[in-house]
Amino acid sequence: MTTYVAGIDVGGTSVKLGLFTILGERIEVWNIPTDLSDTGVHIPQQVAESIYEKIDTLELDKEKFIGAGVGVPGFVRPADGVVKFAVNIKWRDYPAATAFNQALDRPVFVNNDANLATAGEVWRGAGKGAENAVCITLGTGVGAGLVVHGDILSGKAGTAGEFGHVNVVPGGRKCECGGYGCLESYASATGLVGVATEQLHEHKESSLHQIDTISAADIYHAADHGDQFAQKLIDDAGYYLGYAIANMATVLNPEKIIIGGGMSAAGDTLLQPVRKAFEQFVLPEAGASAEIAFAELGNEAGVNGGSWLAVKRLDRLPADQIE
Amino acid sequence: MTTYVAGIDVGGTSVKLGLFTILGERIEVWNIPTDLSDTGVHIPQQVAESIYEKIDTLELDKEKFIGAGVGVPGFVRPADGVVKFAVNIKWRDYPAATAFNQALDRPVFVNNDANLATAGEVWRGAGKGAENAVCITLGTGVGAGLVVHGDILSGKAGTAGEFGHVNVVPGGRKCECGGYGCLESYASATGLVGVATEQLHEHKESSLHQIDTISAADIYHAADHGDQFAQKLIDDAGYYLGYAIANMATVLNPEKIIIGGGMSAAGDTLLQPVRKAFEQFVLPEAGASAEIAFAELGNEAGVNGGSWLAVKRLDRLPADQIE
Repeated sequence: MTTYVAGIDVGGTSVKLGLFTILGERIEVWNIPTDLSDTGVHIPQQVAESIYEKIDTLELDKEKFIGAGVGVPGFVRPADGVVKFAVNIKWRDYPAATAFNQALDRPVFVNNDANLATAGEVWRGAGKGAENAVCITLGTGVGAGLVVHGDILSGKAGTAGEFGHVNVVPGGRKCECGGYGCLESYASATGLVGVATEQLHEHKESSLHQIDTISAADIYHAADHGDQFAQKLIDDAGYYLGYAIANMATVLNPEKIIIGGGMSAAGDTLLQPVRKAFEQFVLPEAGASAEIAFAELGNEAGVNGGSWLAVKRLDRLPADQIE
Repeated sequence: MTTYVAGIDVGGTSVKLGLFTILGERIEVWNIPTDLSDTGVHIPQQVAESIYEKIDTLELDKEKFIGAGVGVPGFVRPADGVVKFAVNIKWRDYPAATAFNQALDRPVFVNNDANLATAGEVWRGAGKGAENAVCITLGTGVGAGLVVHGDILSGKAGTAGEFGHVNVVPGGRKCECGGYGCLESYASATGLVGVATEQLHEHKESSLHQIDTISAADIYHAADHGDQFAQKLIDDAGYYLGYAIANMATVLNPEKIIIGGGMSAAGDTLLQPVRKAFEQFVLPEAGASAEIAFAELGNEAGVNGGSWLAVKRLDRLPADQIE
């Protein structure tokens, strides 16, 4: 059979695991609950046991398992795989690459989970084959991962892709980063709800008054049922998103702009105002060459990206394809 | 002696030529007037003759001349070196790489001149050794070149680095690109003069009233001599520049941000408001890891970058250093 790798997506509640061939074929994806005891030091061993158990169950050749890539929701130094901090997993200055390497007895590479989700989409999802792509994650916050020249861009301090902190309204809403007017303050689920709460008293007619604690999903639901205030909130969020994406595309001229994360479930309700602002503000040549698409891999993007990372760093992509 | 390459920076008035060793040592830089006759088709032959003449004069070993890189002020397809259009040189769908290759009898690589100026600064100037750097050129317009993962970023349509068309004022001043509120409309020499002309009547006290046709240099000069309106104009231009640079740095987290072009001669008068806005708007972690510096190579940046391009594409960088 074909040589294969593991993708490991470590989350605060569960660890998602995947086995993929170096050609990008999905063998198996599964979850285990994250062992957070003792500040998370048992995770690598727990993951290794689960992977080797799966390899046995599937009767795969253990010798053809050549390495793994690990995604961590936090600040990672890719060069040596040290996790500076990952709050949800209680890791701080944790040598993740070394720990997973010892547990798995295979080369292991570590990166930020948003970067790996982007790489996953470029490897096997909405950005398949793109040399330059941006993947924007809309959830509680707004993040992005960048693939440039076919590889993840981490940047000098590892903070590349902090798209949520692009300023879209100088002097605007206060952001947790300390800034005023960050995109995240307007276009994340939290930002959308924040703006709604601030403005709701001016819109007595809105159906949102019937809800005790408004969520982003409530706002999308209300808009889809004709609530004009809710629609206005989404249009505004989409405007800021489209504006910021346009400016990024003018500078980077990516071929794919992928939108994922929980908020992307809103689909066209959100995408329409995003596209409108994007087309208004982007340099026409850059806009014409960039395709905006929804993410395709859902919550498997991370394990796809982890597998890609192992294949890429082991230099088994794309030519060296061993049967 | 060491193997060497040529850098060729084609301009509408003159062609700048340079010979550099593959280790990045400057052998010689000189100019010839651009032969624009017959829509510029004689330029490659003219350049080749000048280069081989110089090689003879300097008594260099012709066999150690291994290739060249050409910078063109226009829209270039790097993959095959075809110039889609370069208005000042009258080239349109011109196979520049092929033409220079035939004239020089060496491998030739072509790219946009702003990209090559950036690469030049990263090779031997203000960005020396940076993996990720941005070089912003402030002149008649505002442009930028990006080096990411140690290589030029051209983008899908070849328009990456169109920093002048990042929108900083939605619905603001009309730009030649068709947009409203592009950075270039505020922070280029043309933009600065445009804003000055629009606002001058509100500032009876300004010394700029004594000038018939105001230039950007006049505005800098007036500011340096205490003219408060001129200072305000520069502060505003610097604000927009710093704002746009901050947003770009938040996304890309570059290690060097290099500022060059004619307007950079204004030095600290301009840099101070740029830095102030940059620090106000950038994500702190990205700001702390990015160094802002002035370009060092002046109008030799292009021939440096052309030489770098040849060395890079011939894969003679950095390990394969032959004496």
